[in-house]
Amino acid sequence: MTATDFPKTDQNRIRRLAKRGAYDRETIYPIVDAAQVCHVAFVHEGQPVVIPTIHAREDDTIYLHGAPASRLLKVVAAGAPLCVAVTHLDGLVVARSLFNSSMNYRSAVLFGHGRLLETSEEKLHALEVISEHLLPGRWAEARPTTTTELNATAVVAIEIETGSAKVRTGGPVDDEEDYSLPIWAGVIPLQVHALTPEPDSRLAPGIPVPDYLLGR
Amino acid sequence: MTATDFPKTDQNRIRRLAKRGAYDRETIYPIVDAAQVCHVAFVHEGQPVVIPTIHAREDDTIYLHGAPASRLLKVVAAGAPLCVAVTHLDGLVVARSLFNSSMNYRSAVLFGHGRLLETSEEKLHALEVISEHLLPGRWAEARPTTTTELNATAVVAIEIETGSAKVRTGGPVDDEEDYSLPIWAGVIPLQVHALTPEPDSRLAPGIPVPDYLLGR
Repeated sequence: MTATDFPKTDQNRIRRLAKRGAYDRETIYPIVDAAQVCHVAFVHEGQPVVIPTIHAREDDTIYLHGAPASRLLKVVAAGAPLCVAVTHLDGLVVARSLFNSSMNYRSAVLFGHGRLLETSEEKLHALEVISEHLLPGRWAEARPTTTTELNATAVVAIEIETGSAKVRTGGPVDDEEDYSLPIWAGVIPLQVHALTPEPDSRLAPGIPVPDYLLGR
Repeated sequence: MTATDFPKTDQNRIRRLAKRGAYDRETIYPIVDAAQVCHVAFVHEGQPVVIPTIHAREDDTIYLHGAPASRLLKVVAAGAPLCVAVTHLDGLVVARSLFNSSMNYRSAVLFGHGRLLETSEEKLHALEVISEHLLPGRWAEARPTTTTELNATAVVAIEIETGSAKVRTGGPVDDEEDYSLPIWAGVIPLQVHALTPEPDSRLAPGIPVPDYLLGR
């Protein structure tokens, strides 16, 4: 364990295939940062609820935003215990047997509690972090956020208290006697592609796609 | 509400942007079926936990599988209340203001309880449903599952009791006075691509990639 590791506790310990697990921020945070959406779980009247939402991370903090009436944000603002999952599917691992077939993936699971951001300064900062996470460069070009809009936006910060990552890479690992079977095996890689930006039908004439939105 | 709708209750009701919500199986189930991974949330000692896992749906049932020691599967098998989320990110919606910027997405949130499948027949059937969901055609070609492997696999069935979907499509919707601004706006579509299958380094000679793994 290094200084950047989360302590391994009953909450974040990887139980299955522990060799795929990691507890250090250097492994966990790039997984969180590579995603444009996360899943936030909370307990509502004894029932589990999980909701997808946009996020961004700064240090040990996850920012979420939305309408002040959002149940998710109300629960987060109330300081309820939360679990945040981020998952990337990188490939289908096709083994000769179904039992040894698998997925290549990078996943992170974080635990913490949230708080509502109160001042305009910290709200604007968090919104800039979220915007720059999703579309680096956009914050400076978009029409600035008005006070009315800022008041109509709830922003919460979740302090990451512990977490873990689980990663699988590489080809199938078959039973030794299966390798000679005349059955194809390998990996089907999966990738998320950003396609060519589609201009809004009401775009004012002569406005090219900005460089920061290309080559993503 | 039609015969295929889930009743709108406090549990599944879409609270924010209700016009994007849907409660009918015809909308919800294609979203569930288009995904190769879901996120399952449960309550463990009062804390919410959310874990990504492979799934497949048949009628009103979600099947999950894994090692018998898996905490997730133990919780599901014990009949605890569960929430399952499936999310597809279809595009970044770039409005002239950040406030009106958004995402295009299809998401489904399901609620239910699970049970452990006990007989070899129902376990094998569920495993075939999962396999055919991920890689249609593979079940018939892979080396058949042995009794030892089947005994080492836990399979659970979650009965979907209620659920909802939320979908956003289309371009940005800006404030009327923002349309004339000299700021680019539009949509950056996102798509998951399956790349060319990569054969295992120990593949026996002369085995082509099967047709059912191509053109995905």
